[in-house]
Amino acid sequence: MSKPHILICNDDGITAPGIQNLTEAVKSFGHLTIVAPDSPQSGMGHAISVGKPLRLYESQLAHGRTGWACSGTPVDCVKLATGVLLKEKPDLLVSGINHGANSSISVVYSGTMSAAMEGAIEGIPSIGFSLCDFSHQADFSASQEIVKIIVERALNNPMPTGTLLNVNIPALPLDQIKGIRITRQAIGRWVEEFDQRIDPAGRPYYWLTGKFKIEDDGLDTDEWALANGFVSVCPVQFDLTAHHALPSLNHWNMHLP
Amino acid sequence: MSKPHILICNDDGITAPGIQNLTEAVKSFGHLTIVAPDSPQSGMGHAISVGKPLRLYESQLAHGRTGWACSGTPVDCVKLATGVLLKEKPDLLVSGINHGANSSISVVYSGTMSAAMEGAIEGIPSIGFSLCDFSHQADFSASQEIVKIIVERALNNPMPTGTLLNVNIPALPLDQIKGIRITRQAIGRWVEEFDQRIDPAGRPYYWLTGKFKIEDDGLDTDEWALANGFVSVCPVQFDLTAHHALPSLNHWNMHLP
Repeated sequence: MSKPHILICNDDGITAPGIQNLTEAVKSFGHLTIVAPDSPQSGMGHAISVGKPLRLYESQLAHGRTGWACSGTPVDCVKLATGVLLKEKPDLLVSGINHGANSSISVVYSGTMSAAMEGAIEGIPSIGFSLCDFSHQADFSASQEIVKIIVERALNNPMPTGTLLNVNIPALPLDQIKGIRITRQAIGRWVEEFDQRIDPAGRPYYWLTGKFKIEDDGLDTDEWALANGFVSVCPVQFDLTAHHALPSLNHWNMHLP
Repeated sequence: MSKPHILICNDDGITAPGIQNLTEAVKSFGHLTIVAPDSPQSGMGHAISVGKPLRLYESQLAHGRTGWACSGTPVDCVKLATGVLLKEKPDLLVSGINHGANSSISVVYSGTMSAAMEGAIEGIPSIGFSLCDFSHQADFSASQEIVKIIVERALNNPMPTGTLLNVNIPALPLDQIKGIRITRQAIGRWVEEFDQRIDPAGRPYYWLTGKFKIEDDGLDTDEWALANGFVSVCPVQFDLTAHHALPSLNHWNMHLP
């Protein structure tokens, strides 16, 4: 069997330590194509560039590697990779390693996870990796080992239909990580606290800040796993239908006049 | 009972005909607060503004109304509305009316639907409306009647837990619309076809284009409803866990060394 082809992307930008560490972790598994935003794109969700053209240019990376920098969003990167750069669908897409957690509701805001979701929509087995440490100087050495374990399994098992993986890694040395748990997305949300300031011209502006509030005491969630020293592997889907809500909506009796 | 408070937003921008028509349709139901982007934000998905501050300013709208224009994304609009402008949680959030369909996989790219999803995450009953006509001059008269029917029901029935509604309206006169169907999200995806051009300096750039490809022949989908002259009401959730995938992932046997 020929070596698998792995597409690597992220949302923190092509020069971020996280994507360099992801590349180091997966380099022995196959041929690599690296396509990532040319600037940080955190919080971009599943945004695509509508109404403005995209640039894609070769970029010299660490260890003599060549990658592609894209002027758009993380999802644009995946679309350009599969639509312009690659002749065949890659065997695996890995996104990250994100600087900061993407557990619970953060999955819907995350550019890292949206890149992975775009891969899954296109039929590519796809995994997003995040380390629970926002620091630019975060220690990714344990994360590299976790990535290797999960990528090896992903290359040797079929990805469940319509599914991608959201992997969150606690900020701990490898010998303090207790194991790997399959989890569900914890119920929770970000509670906004806007920081209002006045500019030199006397006009207000607002910085978005917020605190995460968990509303779930389950022992099977991603938040529980991380808080208890486990790696969380949460399967994510892009069929957003709330199937449980179909019966009650039929009782709304919506009719035309 | 006091009149309900309805928060109105969109992704096409505060001056779009769609949000003006939505406002006209819901004005008799309650007090209105209108907060929308100051420029078109189609395709922004669930993006939020990270690393740049937001502006929020009063805007004079048609019919002597006052609204709020926001420099950020559709999700930023909802966050600023609930975090800065409003003292109490609104009773209903309506987003749209989008110029163009948001059925099938388009829900994950849609700013209109992401604004509604943000409302739902914050515990507000939320509905996104889209008309299957991308034209700026689209006829929203049938859409106004559909909005009235659905908003009346939404104000008098509890929204199922963790759910928002994705309403898509066919581009037909009211007397040619066959009814309102509760649907599921059709399986499908956008297949990219990048239009590569060369700028005056000789460098390439890319326009994202694409064709929607349906991969679902179910009679219970949003795409089927729209193709057959029905309004589609699809319940959407923000718990993205692929619960069906949990058992097979447990068989991957991921262990630390």
